[in-house]
Amino acid sequence: MTIKIVMDTDPGIDDAAALTMALNDPQIELKLITSVAGNVTVDKTTKNAQKIVRFFNKKVPVAAGAKQPLIKEFEDAARIHGESGMPGYEFPEDLPKPLDVSAVEALRETIMNSDEKITLVPTGSYTNIALLFSEYPEVKDHIERIVAMGGSLGKGNMTSAAEFNVFTDPDAAKIMYHAGIPITMVGLDITMKALLTPESLAKLETMNETGKMLHDIIIHDGDNSDQGIAMHDVNTIFYLLHPEAIKTEKMWIDIVTDGPAIGETVGDIRGAYHDGKTNANVCVDIDAQAFNEWFLEEVSKINK
Amino acid sequence: MTIKIVMDTDPGIDDAAALTMALNDPQIELKLITSVAGNVTVDKTTKNAQKIVRFFNKKVPVAAGAKQPLIKEFEDAARIHGESGMPGYEFPEDLPKPLDVSAVEALRETIMNSDEKITLVPTGSYTNIALLFSEYPEVKDHIERIVAMGGSLGKGNMTSAAEFNVFTDPDAAKIMYHAGIPITMVGLDITMKALLTPESLAKLETMNETGKMLHDIIIHDGDNSDQGIAMHDVNTIFYLLHPEAIKTEKMWIDIVTDGPAIGETVGDIRGAYHDGKTNANVCVDIDAQAFNEWFLEEVSKINK
Amino acid sequence: MTIKIVMDTDPGIDDAAALTMALNDPQIELKLITSVAGNVTVDKTTKNAQKIVRFFNKKVPVAAGAKQPLIKEFEDAARIHGESGMPGYEFPEDLPKPLDVSAVEALRETIMNSDEKITLVPTGSYTNIALLFSEYPEVKDHIERIVAMGGSLGKGNMTSAAEFNVFTDPDAAKIMYHAGIPITMVGLDITMKALLTPESLAKLETMNETGKMLHDIIIHDGDNSDQGIAMHDVNTIFYLLHPEAIKTEKMWIDIVTDGPAIGETVGDIRGAYHDGKTNANVCVDIDAQAFNEWFLEEVSKINK
Amino acid sequence: MTIKIVMDTDPGIDDAAALTMALNDPQIELKLITSVAGNVTVDKTTKNAQKIVRFFNKKVPVAAGAKQPLIKEFEDAARIHGESGMPGYEFPEDLPKPLDVSAVEALRETIMNSDEKITLVPTGSYTNIALLFSEYPEVKDHIERIVAMGGSLGKGNMTSAAEFNVFTDPDAAKIMYHAGIPITMVGLDITMKALLTPESLAKLETMNETGKMLHDIIIHDGDNSDQGIAMHDVNTIFYLLHPEAIKTEKMWIDIVTDGPAIGETVGDIRGAYHDGKTNANVCVDIDAQAFNEWFLEEVSKINK
Repeated sequence: MTIKIVMDTDPGIDDAAALTMALNDPQIELKLITSVAGNVTVDKTTKNAQKIVRFFNKKVPVAAGAKQPLIKEFEDAARIHGESGMPGYEFPEDLPKPLDVSAVEALRETIMNSDEKITLVPTGSYTNIALLFSEYPEVKDHIERIVAMGGSLGKGNMTSAAEFNVFTDPDAAKIMYHAGIPITMVGLDITMKALLTPESLAKLETMNETGKMLHDIIIHDGDNSDQGIAMHDVNTIFYLLHPEAIKTEKMWIDIVTDGPAIGETVGDIRGAYHDGKTNANVCVDIDAQAFNEWFLEEVSKINK
Repeated sequence: MTIKIVMDTDPGIDDAAALTMALNDPQIELKLITSVAGNVTVDKTTKNAQKIVRFFNKKVPVAAGAKQPLIKEFEDAARIHGESGMPGYEFPEDLPKPLDVSAVEALRETIMNSDEKITLVPTGSYTNIALLFSEYPEVKDHIERIVAMGGSLGKGNMTSAAEFNVFTDPDAAKIMYHAGIPITMVGLDITMKALLTPESLAKLETMNETGKMLHDIIIHDGDNSDQGIAMHDVNTIFYLLHPEAIKTEKMWIDIVTDGPAIGETVGDIRGAYHDGKTNANVCVDIDAQAFNEWFLEEVSKINK
Repeated sequence: MTIKIVMDTDPGIDDAAALTMALNDPQIELKLITSVAGNVTVDKTTKNAQKIVRFFNKKVPVAAGAKQPLIKEFEDAARIHGESGMPGYEFPEDLPKPLDVSAVEALRETIMNSDEKITLVPTGSYTNIALLFSEYPEVKDHIERIVAMGGSLGKGNMTSAAEFNVFTDPDAAKIMYHAGIPITMVGLDITMKALLTPESLAKLETMNETGKMLHDIIIHDGDNSDQGIAMHDVNTIFYLLHPEAIKTEKMWIDIVTDGPAIGETVGDIRGAYHDGKTNANVCVDIDAQAFNEWFLEEVSKINK
Repeated sequence: MTIKIVMDTDPGIDDAAALTMALNDPQIELKLITSVAGNVTVDKTTKNAQKIVRFFNKKVPVAAGAKQPLIKEFEDAARIHGESGMPGYEFPEDLPKPLDVSAVEALRETIMNSDEKITLVPTGSYTNIALLFSEYPEVKDHIERIVAMGGSLGKGNMTSAAEFNVFTDPDAAKIMYHAGIPITMVGLDITMKALLTPESLAKLETMNETGKMLHDIIIHDGDNSDQGIAMHDVNTIFYLLHPEAIKTEKMWIDIVTDGPAIGETVGDIRGAYHDGKTNANVCVDIDAQAFNEWFLEEVSKINK
């Protein structure tokens, strides 16, 4: 049985790797890709998503989404991801056209027309998801769950409090976390542990064309430390396929929408402040070696 | 020359009166009505808008909008406006159908397809406007200005700080006030002065069928004090047609989105905190007698 | 029977008038004056308080208090009150020395050593009161009530939200309002109504030396409009002596300590948000003519 | 040359160990101990501080401080530290009397009368320090620096955002961090690494009476995991004596005083939001083995 998903994404290097897995793993049926401003502007994230789809000659539709966060001003991460957001590899230029409806409209149609409930996999900031839930709250009943990259119980990467995706659009995150849909938070608590090791990267390069593509965009970044490189968004797909390799805890997550901790996911780690209620399933630990092995195996199975 | 407007509204009694003026005054071309949850649920506000359109046999399209605020939980004002939001008069039941697209989609299409720039007149909470600007920021260049009922420099009506429309969806208000479009704040500072007097109400009743309809829904409310009854939303239309009867001041308006003052429009009345910058034109005084005279004259000219 | 009070003040022109009444009315026993930064720096407010005491040859001790607010940065109002805070009249220079203990220590001693409970009358920002309650919470049981100038349900005078005293040290206001002591809020809602009329001012000038002194410092300000001049702090003493001339309402008051509405006193005017609980008695209306008559009569009775 | 310090503390088990080191290490001159509510009520923390002083027959004066935080309501940690805050060992009952002045007064006198600048070492919440700086800002010029246990860049222990000391009185923390005095933040980032190992604990028990006392109160807690037990407050003294064993980074620290992240110390870890300015020296790594060795050596040298 396949898992029917929609990915809402801002590629981005690790996003490209997550899309690679989602497009090719036979247990996943990727029905729609929507783009959002984040790592770079939405024009670029849309194009980058299309490049990956085109690379694999897949037919998954791409719809362009929000150009900026709901309320907070937009700060991209081009400094980290390069100007294009996905440099280092020459992708074909003959890209399919994105859908001529907005991400919100495409999400609504895909979700409402599916015979089975859909799993949402947002790996950028959550602006499209928030707009969708606000404009069409009826979709909520047709969503199985949300598996979202973003947030941190421990140290953030924008401030000590905040992780990039939630920091970029905290108001959207608040809407998503309060929507009443089961949500798994795939945050820095595991993505900073499940590093792609230098050994894995070396194997990737010579594996096949897909491996070479991923290697080249990952390596271009230049940020490969001795310990390895974080593959943040890929953890969402790994979780979908191998939940047994990730430890989760149910707790209440609040989103901070202003002040110095803006963009933080605050966990009620002692269950002390919300009458024992929980609204999220938070990933707290991961088998990093299993992640590396799975990553290489996924790529090795791709017929390109 | 006519003023091309779109009304985004949650009728509601004073909203009904505002629609009456906008549908019938020859200087105004009302191109679209969108509904939003507020005084009552959006199903009812949509139906109420249609009742007014049907009452006057007009062809203005109505599109149903947001069911709830962006982030804050929905509290309606049914206690004030009655369960239906517009009780006291028997409207025809054969209503036209609302558009089969959402308010956001209808707004986008109407604004982008107009040969002249549109004036937005929101008289409910600003959820639809916020969703529109977030999903389709390109519409901003096609909007002449916003004339919005809501807010208060002085005392509010939900708390001492907050007026109902802004209180209902403060995050949407923040998005609207930061959109960079010229905005006139038509708040309690004038709407609590421009009361419809008992004498005006008495004249209204015997004037014509329109007068009787307005009289009956206004009176049903039972809140007619000795001084008169506030016709909040009608002030927006009066301002469009008779700006000379209203005193305005340019200042910076901030929107409070959390804490005890949630939903407040804070004016930098001394120009002390924003480097002399302003983002709004705030109505601070009104000629209440001129308002009453105009109100009666408008109704008297309606051929029903 | 006399009312035993302590005044905590930042003279300031209207403060000087309030001290004048408190020092001379036989129904009031003023046991201590403490100073606080506010209208001008604390060195000046201390000196100004001493000038008034010296002017009347009274023995009331003065203790110097807080130099700045608890958390917020200090902005004085020298622009309004002149550099000295009390210009326009030549006071004697041979001032008594202030106490050699801090305002907090003097307040503690005065309150704890009094055989009857004390009424606190703060007419500046509430920093000393907050420090007192934090350092010596045991004093609370020895305080009859607080009658505090500050706050506003309607429009503020720093922003549309905030009145000067609360704006200057909102955190101190929060501590004071949450201390569990009966508190009467004497805010702009009445002080902007009870204006000292031009006629009253003219009478004051020729009444006696006290009248001339008050006239001169009031007039120096140059802000005497046609309607009259607000005598903010004096309203506290008028309320102590003539509560029948002031209408009050019990409600819950919250203090805003950050964001755009910082320094606001938010009243739950509909009793909707605190389970019907109240923490303050808010002055909402005043007999302005009675205030003027009383003001003149008080001065006329002073034997100087 | 000795380091002249004042400890402001809420013993508490780890506080007792910190006092033990400070009272006995010859390089430290402990001039005053002030108590504050925190782990348990201030009556108990005062008594516990006196027990340690009495245990070692030292003459260091103890002054009782704040009974509750400035604004936030008091929640103690009796659940963690036991009802007395320091159970498990029978201390002598003939305790010296605390000073008959408040902690604030004692701090002022000690600091102003010292011929050399004093180092403040707060290991509980910072209420006394905040009151001191607010009432007597002149002391700031006589303080060498602050070395404060509290805060966290990574995960907190009250919520995922907040550490206990800062969470208990965030407003006081804000005042302390904005006082303009050099401050070293000794937070969970190191105190959760420098665990007292089971081996160290075993050695402690048989070392001498001091070792037995510390062992017994530490062990009573029952929280000794396999990895060891955190000795939070002791890290401040270790830092004073062995700064070479702790890695610090200068950055801007903001304190969150409301909302879901209340009590958090937010670090601008990328230097992106405060124009490169810093207000704190944050401990980010520690040599845990060196800490254990030093801890045992300190105790072994004590002649009891």
